[in-house]
Amino acid sequence: MFITRRERFNAAHRLFREDWSDEKNLEVFGKCSNPNWHGHNYIMFVTVKGKVSKETGFVINLKDLSGIINTRIIDKIDHKNLNLEVDFMKGRIVSTENIAIAIWDELEENIRQIGAELHCIKIVETENNFVEYYGN
Amino acid sequence: MFITRRERFNAAHRLFREDWSDEKNLEVFGKCSNPNWHGHNYIMFVTVKGKVSKETGFVINLKDLSGIINTRIIDKIDHKNLNLEVDFMKGRIVSTENIAIAIWDELEENIRQIGAELHCIKIVETENNFVEYYGN
Amino acid sequence: MFITRRERFNAAHRLFREDWSDEKNLEVFGKCSNPNWHGHNYIMFVTVKGKVSKETGFVINLKDLSGIINTRIIDKIDHKNLNLEVDFMKGRIVSTENIAIAIWDELEENIRQIGAELHCIKIVETENNFVEYYGN
Amino acid sequence: MFITRRERFNAAHRLFREDWSDEKNLEVFGKCSNPNWHGHNYIMFVTVKGKVSKETGFVINLKDLSGIINTRIIDKIDHKNLNLEVDFMKGRIVSTENIAIAIWDELEENIRQIGAELHCIKIVETENNFVEYYGN
Amino acid sequence: MFITRRERFNAAHRLFREDWSDEKNLEVFGKCSNPNWHGHNYIMFVTVKGKVSKETGFVINLKDLSGIINTRIIDKIDHKNLNLEVDFMKGRIVSTENIAIAIWDELEENIRQIGAELHCIKIVETENNFVEYYGN
Amino acid sequence: MFITRRERFNAAHRLFREDWSDEKNLEVFGKCSNPNWHGHNYIMFVTVKGKVSKETGFVINLKDLSGIINTRIIDKIDHKNLNLEVDFMKGRIVSTENIAIAIWDELEENIRQIGAELHCIKIVETENNFVEYYGN
Repeated sequence: MFITRRERFNAAHRLFREDWSDEKNLEVFGKCSNPNWHGHNYIMFVTVKGKVSKETGFVINLKDLSGIINTRIIDKIDHKNLNLEVDFMKGRIVSTENIAIAIWDELEENIRQIGAELHCIKIVETENNFVEYYGN
Repeated sequence: MFITRRERFNAAHRLFREDWSDEKNLEVFGKCSNPNWHGHNYIMFVTVKGKVSKETGFVINLKDLSGIINTRIIDKIDHKNLNLEVDFMKGRIVSTENIAIAIWDELEENIRQIGAELHCIKIVETENNFVEYYGN
Repeated sequence: MFITRRERFNAAHRLFREDWSDEKNLEVFGKCSNPNWHGHNYIMFVTVKGKVSKETGFVINLKDLSGIINTRIIDKIDHKNLNLEVDFMKGRIVSTENIAIAIWDELEENIRQIGAELHCIKIVETENNFVEYYGN
Repeated sequence: MFITRRERFNAAHRLFREDWSDEKNLEVFGKCSNPNWHGHNYIMFVTVKGKVSKETGFVINLKDLSGIINTRIIDKIDHKNLNLEVDFMKGRIVSTENIAIAIWDELEENIRQIGAELHCIKIVETENNFVEYYGN
Repeated sequence: MFITRRERFNAAHRLFREDWSDEKNLEVFGKCSNPNWHGHNYIMFVTVKGKVSKETGFVINLKDLSGIINTRIIDKIDHKNLNLEVDFMKGRIVSTENIAIAIWDELEENIRQIGAELHCIKIVETENNFVEYYGN
Repeated sequence: MFITRRERFNAAHRLFREDWSDEKNLEVFGKCSNPNWHGHNYIMFVTVKGKVSKETGFVINLKDLSGIINTRIIDKIDHKNLNLEVDFMKGRIVSTENIAIAIWDELEENIRQIGAELHCIKIVETENNFVEYYGN
């Protein structure tokens, strides 16, 4: 059984490498490399798997799952600059792929502690593109 | 090849255990344990898998699939109280997880009889949470 | 300038008149008159109008508007039975139209006190129907 | 007859006044005043009104309307910082209200030149809030 | 009080004038003039206005409204070719504007007969464009 | 890591077999066999899988993926008749299942050439039905 919680965050970011020129960044990352930042309404889907408890009918109490996601992730990235202000994004190119990996790394152990297993982090950047990460 | 049919039902429910006090139910299930019920616009996605017929280009005729879902499920739960009025929910805590399992159990054999295999029952309770069940 | 805040509530209800038989209620209200209740994920859009403040660029601070809507409405109706538990619905048939009127009556004066004018209450009951009330 | 074209832009912004301290900005604008910016997937609906042409069945050719919106607005604000890089936002607090007014001012004359009348600029900032501006 | 019913229809159409060459049609109507047709999932919103009945809490019984829309409109245009098969589109260029006007003309009198007043026909052709017609 | 690009196309089609009578086609395919065509706003989701590049943070540059999808698919089917005008649909019944298979066959090799692996083609025909194809 899989259960999914949706959460949202609005953040600024820039796709670029410091060791590349603005021209090279523009060539590879297009307008996403704009030096003055741009931003998105990101939508995150956190899917966990587990057995359904005979006692509660739940895989996991969504209140607990939502609490973990908000404490560990949303409070740190909502209305923030993903390149400058988020500890778990430090040293990473702020692609949607890397956001998903970083969030997986932040949540995996905490979700295990409440008795479930993290299955998928899905990050929707725009209505036309999203990524799904299942760990490795 | 996987093909999915979406159907909807609006129903009342309450999350609670009869053998627990109202206080215990409130503690575990939160406002979902309100004794006077609350309700949802549930969205259900039924996914079946199968081979594509050379004759029709179909895995399954969606008219047949929709017919089964409506006869076996929607007619019994739409505009109903899931705790009080639905035979296949009797004796189960009415969590989204248990709704998905019960619907799987109702549909699996019927879908096999029209030549396809039930793959997934997805139940969306609110825009922020849903479950997916793939059988066991 | 018009600004709109969306809020959501999940509630049970029944369409019926106490002075009618179950048969008459069924005839007029259809399956919405089910005596054991059913429910919806209601979506509410509260639109206010006003001038844009030179000081803040706002018609109204959405934090204030959201605060009023939550205190006056959401806290009273979310995860509740609209027929049995909501003071401002007492004595009214719980149609979408009457929900909109009752919410208008609850909010109008409070919104005036924070310097704006209530313009429209829109209540979406299902993806196929909604009402809009502009006062009278 | 009213016809509406939807366009989207992803941009960074910050709500603040230069003549206020960070504390005052935080108090009034909340986390939207974050000095390192945040951002949104803005959705814009441009509604024009006019008579339906007997010759074409159109109020306006949407290709022309979309062309004007893209040249005058989207090219200037998509993947940009609304505070720093957009000529028509200079000197304005970057609230959703002011974005709508500024876009109205940019488009009104151009739309008149292709034979229609601008009726409404609707800007959706998040799924929970939007503004509508009808000129003054 | 305004109440809106959503209905959907999937249809083929072509934008063109018989008295123009294919080149002229292509120039004015673009790829929408493709001689072999193309199609859409049209979404229609029918809004009526009226007083709320003290007896039922309804402006109008949505079952009646939906019945009229299906009999008069959906049965005639769903899974049809709007240029070739729909009586009320005969002699009209099949633009979204003209579809809205024709549907208004079909529904206005019938809705008056069930005690309400037609207020708006909204036709959504794609996620990026729609028209709204309020009669004349 | 999986990354998905959404693209859309509006097209006419008809479900039928030339070697069957209109009656037989109507019996099997229902109103989808209308001889004068009907149409849809199809939504396509192309999912590719691959490793995240240390250099760019990307599985694949979405600009490249979108370019391939548009050149190989969208340019050939948008605003077209899927039965009459699309080379890769020739000789196939134009079911949603067969559209997904044909698009898979068109894209698989091209996506491999830009360093990723095609994982899934999802085609949404209406809000109530979609197919997913993972190759064979």
